[in-house]
Amino acid sequence: MKQTIPVPAAIAELDHQDSFAGKRSEFRLPADTIYLNGNSLGPLTFAAQERLVEACKQEWRQDLIGGWNKHGWLDLPIQVGEKIARLIGAKTGQTVACDSTSLNLFKVLSAALSLQSGRTTVLTQEENFPTDLYIAQGMRDLLGEHHCKLKNVQAQELSDSIDESIAVLMLTQVDFRSGYKHDIEILTKKAHEVGALVVWDLAHSAGAFPLDLDKWQVDFAVGCGYKYLNGGPGAPAFLYAAERHHKLLRQPLYGWMGHAQPFLFERNYVAASGVQKFSVGTPNVLSLAALQGALSVFDNVDLHALREKSNRLAATFMRLMSDVESLQCMNLISPIDAAQRGSQLSYTHPYAYAVTRVLIEQGVVVDYRAPDCIRFGLTPLYTRYMDIWRAVEALKEVIESRRFERAQYQADYQNAGSKLRITVT
Amino acid sequence: MKQTIPVPAAIAELDHQDSFAGKRSEFRLPADTIYLNGNSLGPLTFAAQERLVEACKQEWRQDLIGGWNKHGWLDLPIQVGEKIARLIGAKTGQTVACDSTSLNLFKVLSAALSLQSGRTTVLTQEENFPTDLYIAQGMRDLLGEHHCKLKNVQAQELSDSIDESIAVLMLTQVDFRSGYKHDIEILTKKAHEVGALVVWDLAHSAGAFPLDLDKWQVDFAVGCGYKYLNGGPGAPAFLYAAERHHKLLRQPLYGWMGHAQPFLFERNYVAASGVQKFSVGTPNVLSLAALQGALSVFDNVDLHALREKSNRLAATFMRLMSDVESLQCMNLISPIDAAQRGSQLSYTHPYAYAVTRVLIEQGVVVDYRAPDCIRFGLTPLYTRYMDIWRAVEALKEVIESRRFERAQYQADYQNAGSKLRITVT
Repeated sequence: MKQTIPVPAAIAELDHQDSFAGKRSEFRLPADTIYLNGNSLGPLTFAAQERLVEACKQEWRQDLIGGWNKHGWLDLPIQVGEKIARLIGAKTGQTVACDSTSLNLFKVLSAALSLQSGRTTVLTQEENFPTDLYIAQGMRDLLGEHHCKLKNVQAQELSDSIDESIAVLMLTQVDFRSGYKHDIEILTKKAHEVGALVVWDLAHSAGAFPLDLDKWQVDFAVGCGYKYLNGGPGAPAFLYAAERHHKLLRQPLYGWMGHAQPFLFERNYVAASGVQKFSVGTPNVLSLAALQGALSVFDNVDLHALREKSNRLAATFMRLMSDVESLQCMNLISPIDAAQRGSQLSYTHPYAYAVTRVLIEQGVVVDYRAPDCIRFGLTPLYTRYMDIWRAVEALKEVIESRRFERAQYQADYQNAGSKLRITVT
Repeated sequence: MKQTIPVPAAIAELDHQDSFAGKRSEFRLPADTIYLNGNSLGPLTFAAQERLVEACKQEWRQDLIGGWNKHGWLDLPIQVGEKIARLIGAKTGQTVACDSTSLNLFKVLSAALSLQSGRTTVLTQEENFPTDLYIAQGMRDLLGEHHCKLKNVQAQELSDSIDESIAVLMLTQVDFRSGYKHDIEILTKKAHEVGALVVWDLAHSAGAFPLDLDKWQVDFAVGCGYKYLNGGPGAPAFLYAAERHHKLLRQPLYGWMGHAQPFLFERNYVAASGVQKFSVGTPNVLSLAALQGALSVFDNVDLHALREKSNRLAATFMRLMSDVESLQCMNLISPIDAAQRGSQLSYTHPYAYAVTRVLIEQGVVVDYRAPDCIRFGLTPLYTRYMDIWRAVEALKEVIESRRFERAQYQADYQNAGSKLRITVT
């Protein structure tokens, strides 16, 4: 991204007044890149790098097997979980960091079903992130429709579908494509009123804005470690299970790390008493260490202030977009009302794939979601107002030059098929 | 470990003739430590460290989201799996590195059951590693006894219990406590003769000696990335599924990485065609990179020669032990016959916990398994004959000085309870 044109004074002033301006120096961002994709993969921080290198070169190298005791490796899932707990409004003892979002979803979905008797229907929406739909389908295929029935409805039918027939309402709070944000409190309340339990996927929520799971009486939640939490590609995910359910729930992936006394090597599984029972295999120390380091960036962050900046970045972006005549071909599909939106703005364009390609070539990293969507992720810890301005300038140049019409992009698009991945969510 | 006493000439000569002597320099072993615990956690190699640092500081830092394409991160599970394939005797397309051993066991156990109709009994042995038993118990509790019945027998009853009632024979090849090694070929053949399928846990096998899964017609296998493969604490595990089963099998943990076309974001799960269908969530890049680096140490290793050295290290250890009168209190529980043994020697002693503690304090790192077992892991890539000799010398000193009787150790032992973990397997 060539940064030759001076930034307008009004934009520079917004950066000048930004209380998060100092945070950017904690990130190891590459030069000449405007990174609007932290909603897909958060960048490296000095803290994550240091903690990872320490775990590798000091703890593992020097202490070898002794690291499990000396450095508390076995407790990392809980320790890292507790760092996430603050970000999601969970008091202690309910959050663990381990495995992937998909696997954790399998665990909590099963746990939620185990608490219901007589009801077997899982309600979700068709627009849910595919892996969430797949996990539920896997559960149904494993248990049979008699024990797990799926009901996938469209967004507008969702609220009316929450009735006494529903065992579990399973939703992703922020739509990965449009950025539409569900109101967890309202939907959870509605579910509870008819005796359903809720499972929330917070992949695009945790670290992006304040959450209050305990207050909202959420039953279960899962989320991603590598988006807004910056834990590194494929970082361990997290899982939240409300304490009131710990005693009665069952999750079927019995592993030795979920045993009440793993080092007694008993032959029969006895589940640990708390959220620990959602641990399965041996903790992945290196990845947990990177995530642990990354989370320390949040230590002094007020999530309400973070959200406020996110909203201001979005408002700035939308205003700059509407000021440019040639950009009216870009169709905003994210809600204009900030209260209904996550921390991203999504626009459709008939040549979205090619536009994304050209933008990335210009150093403006955004991402594409088939068939026609471009996502601009807003991550206030390191995104400046000047980045937003430059991204719009770059987009304007791409659209006005019509470079996205180049034949090569169309050919690539046609050939991409299953490899249609500029990025991954 | 004080290394003041000169090593006997006969021992020095064995090291002099060792064709693996040069390999040791590829490991970053701490000074003054004799590490006989690579069967529990392999040490750091230069290659693992370099690959991990590269994945973090270059790939993630510089290329951010673009790393998924540019550095083939999405293909890491298969790429790393193929590096393991050579070590286990698997031709291409049958091995994937992901998740934990426990989770992979859940997948293959379920896959094996999905291929059987009319049979539901999983046969295993009581001495199996606990997490294996727990995973099967979790499967039974989830599906109900009607769909998954467990039969746990003692080792000596095992062979006779393989009959037409068995759906799946699920075993760990090398007993974590005694080091007893099953004959995979014979037991697999026996299982197939009665129409059962086999699932082998190779946690203490892969990287320790040659395996020939394809030739032995093994159906499914799983194994550990952090023991003999040196992938780092809690490294990704691996999974093997024989190609002949790919088409019909079902594994229930449907995640987007197991989908035939994940980036089309389809609403219905369609399993990928090959071993890829065992992938679930987003690949853990940092941990896979470390494991990938670690595996490169095996690139030029002849596993038959490796096994030969392991046997010679064991024979040397046993001979040195029997030469010392005071060490006759140590009771060998591993098979004397090398063909029946993994790459470890286990001895029992009434004060095993305390003896282990004192040995570790002396810099001889071994591990303890309740109630009375001390394990000496033999890892020929970096273990020298002189290490074996020094370990026996240290043990002799510990036993003759009777320092293990110190009251503190007994108190610790009594108080340890569930925290009875000097190390973890």
